[in-house]
Amino acid sequence: MKVNVMSDILKANDLLARDIREMLERRRIVSWNVMGSPGSGKTSVLEKLIPLLPRTVKSAVIEGDLATSRDAERIAKIGIQTTQINTRGACHLDAAMVRSAIERIELDNLKLLFIENVGNLVCPAEFALGETGRIIVSSITEGDDKPIKYPSMFKTAQLVFLNKIDLLEQTDFSTANFTKGLKRINPKAELLEGSARDGKGMNELVKWIVDRLL
Amino acid sequence: MKVNVMSDILKANDLLARDIREMLERRRIVSWNVMGSPGSGKTSVLEKLIPLLPRTVKSAVIEGDLATSRDAERIAKIGIQTTQINTRGACHLDAAMVRSAIERIELDNLKLLFIENVGNLVCPAEFALGETGRIIVSSITEGDDKPIKYPSMFKTAQLVFLNKIDLLEQTDFSTANFTKGLKRINPKAELLEGSARDGKGMNELVKWIVDRLL
Repeated sequence: MKVNVMSDILKANDLLARDIREMLERRRIVSWNVMGSPGSGKTSVLEKLIPLLPRTVKSAVIEGDLATSRDAERIAKIGIQTTQINTRGACHLDAAMVRSAIERIELDNLKLLFIENVGNLVCPAEFALGETGRIIVSSITEGDDKPIKYPSMFKTAQLVFLNKIDLLEQTDFSTANFTKGLKRINPKAELLEGSARDGKGMNELVKWIVDRLL
Repeated sequence: MKVNVMSDILKANDLLARDIREMLERRRIVSWNVMGSPGSGKTSVLEKLIPLLPRTVKSAVIEGDLATSRDAERIAKIGIQTTQINTRGACHLDAAMVRSAIERIELDNLKLLFIENVGNLVCPAEFALGETGRIIVSSITEGDDKPIKYPSMFKTAQLVFLNKIDLLEQTDFSTANFTKGLKRINPKAELLEGSARDGKGMNELVKWIVDRLL
């Protein structure tokens, strides 16, 4: 019974996600489901990335959190349309939450929609949000074993942005181990590295995003 | 229907957790549910902590992960009974998993049982495992806003161990902000800080654990 109910929920979510994806594609809006552990730097990366995008690329951000509107306030400061979703305990966003957030966003001329999921390396993987693709922000301070320990998440990503590399010398992190693990779980995922703190690697991330605009 | 099913699952889990708790108490075994984000340092803290405990304090560890037996192998190296649970996708341990792990542990003369949960700041909060109490390992590299952003988890902890403070000067982490947030969410939680990497704060953690033995 538990399994059936879960499968019904996922099916309903997938149908709604498909509607969202089609609507966004019609409007030529590319959307990225930004996922990662709590504190991996998802909001910080968006704060650094968005001001570096070409002025003509209009962006919006949906922020998903269990509680607080902290992340939306941070994004709003860079002058971008932002909508906060509080999941009130739920460990991931779902398509219904994203649909209601999209209704509050001015979509005309929008080119990019970032959907920052709840900080969690497990549950968000199962729920399609109508996104074009998925970006995982993984920080080196979490250790180099994360892809093999959280495979369900890492196998769904188009891009992994390895964050906080400014701390590389102060940790035991091995980029080779991380890369090897990621390749095993998801050979197609691309990997970029940098730091939202000192801005390293941000230009490569900008290029990656711009190359995929519609 | 979704809600009813979830509430039935939680009720069945709570009953089983109560049985485990009573069995452990009869044997005067103290058990700690060790929780935290992926890569916060749960295993590293246990690796440092356990060898510092008095030789008479026999300990065992249950390791919960989605995949791999990496963490159990790390703990086994320090010469401690260890059992790995692979949740195969589930985002948290539950009491049934813990019961089956306990069946594989030699309980005679055991004083301490550490149950390392799946790295996740949301889902493990809802599932009692029969533990005496809960310890959250939170690392400063995750940022100082974690208690207010993940309140359901932080409000259930007896102790928060703030890890990776050796990186304090390389981050923007404010201990004052973290402490303020934690006090707001859970005024009774105790806070210790240190680093599994350089061993700082480990003696205080040992004392905290030893003071609570039965």
